Amino acid sequence: MQFSSKLIEEAVEAFSSLPGIGRKTALRLVLHLVQQPGETVESFASALTKMRNGIKECEQCHNLSDDRLCTVCQDDRRNAQLVCVVESIRDVMAIEETGQYRGFYHVLGGVISPIEGIGPAELNIDSLVSRIDKGDVKEVIMAISPTIEGDTTIFYITKQLASLPVKVSTIARGVSFGGELEYADGLTLGRSIVARIPYKVD
Amino acid sequence: MQFSSKLIEEAVEAFSSLPGIGRKTALRLVLHLVQQPGETVESFASALTKMRNGIKECEQCHNLSDDRLCTVCQDDRRNAQLVCVVESIRDVMAIEETGQYRGFYHVLGGVISPIEGIGPAELNIDSLVSRIDKGDVKEVIMAISPTIEGDTTIFYITKQLASLPVKVSTIARGVSFGGELEYADGLTLGRSIVARIPYKVD
Repeated sequence: MQFSSKLIEEAVEAFSSLPGIGRKTALRLVLHLVQQPGETVESFASALTKMRNGIKECEQCHNLSDDRLCTVCQDDRRNAQLVCVVESIRDVMAIEETGQYRGFYHVLGGVISPIEGIGPAELNIDSLVSRIDKGDVKEVIMAISPTIEGDTTIFYITKQLASLPVKVSTIARGVSFGGELEYADGLTLGRSIVARIPYKVD
Repeated sequence: MQFSSKLIEEAVEAFSSLPGIGRKTALRLVLHLVQQPGETVESFASALTKMRNGIKECEQCHNLSDDRLCTVCQDDRRNAQLVCVVESIRDVMAIEETGQYRGFYHVLGGVISPIEGIGPAELNIDSLVSRIDKGDVKEVIMAISPTIEGDTTIFYITKQLASLPVKVSTIARGVSFGGELEYADGLTLGRSIVARIPYKVD
């Protein structure tokens, strides 16, 4: 694509460096911004730089945070006996979105993956162990993707926590709620049968 | 969606104000930027503000430009006898992309649309007439959308140019090249038959 303006070209380059944004979309966004008042573009740009410069990692759970502790860790109405271990901050948001969980979190920052060169030392596992070691937490819930890497990570963490008086659980895995059985993938369906649970009448 | 960080929330708000970007996409972009080095985000933001503050309108053709005249108008290898009239700078880019046209442009900034309150005075028509009045241009090519508003605009401009020694043409309209006839819309197909052209063997 040819641009009559170097400035437009640089702005398009900037946008198209973002994931999932190609040059046509980038151009559309830039031409939108050209038509906005100067202040709108200034405040757009400053929201990004302020965010990048101001954002911290929560000292307790490694969630993104504006302060030393994130809003979840600052919330003292939550159940301090529960810690949910997740891969990334997106998982924290997804679980918060459900409104079904009122404990705390611990963000690992990934899963153990020898192929990608990610070992236990690259993840926030030591800080999890020392956090549990304080003794307040009664249950660690592993909300980690059911992949080989995820299962390896759960196994590793469980071994690290073995000597501590804490229960380790994983989130339930099986057929999606509301999903048609015939469309469930074979692996999930097979494991759902093997890991069947007693039926209770409430 | 709940955010543990006000800074993240503001950056997501900023991105989701852009056309075609919802909150989920905005979050994905923000989380991408969080993981980039500070300088990357700084240069992203500064590309946008520099673009917005530095961008000018070409004094001759109203294209976006870094200088008094845009790169097209500065290019003296182009054919100064041809001026192509378009609605927007995107049309300039689309025509430049084809590589089939080596004349100059004139960007109207829209089409006459009484419903949207856009009259001839809101468009760059006077500057077109005075540009043609100088006498160098031999042909004005109307590359304007084939809509009622577009046709009205072509009609209005043609009347304004009537007293000047200049030829007015429109780009060819008809069935797309490579398109299957049965999938062409009825109006285009009907008009293609009415406006049929003599077949020439080259």
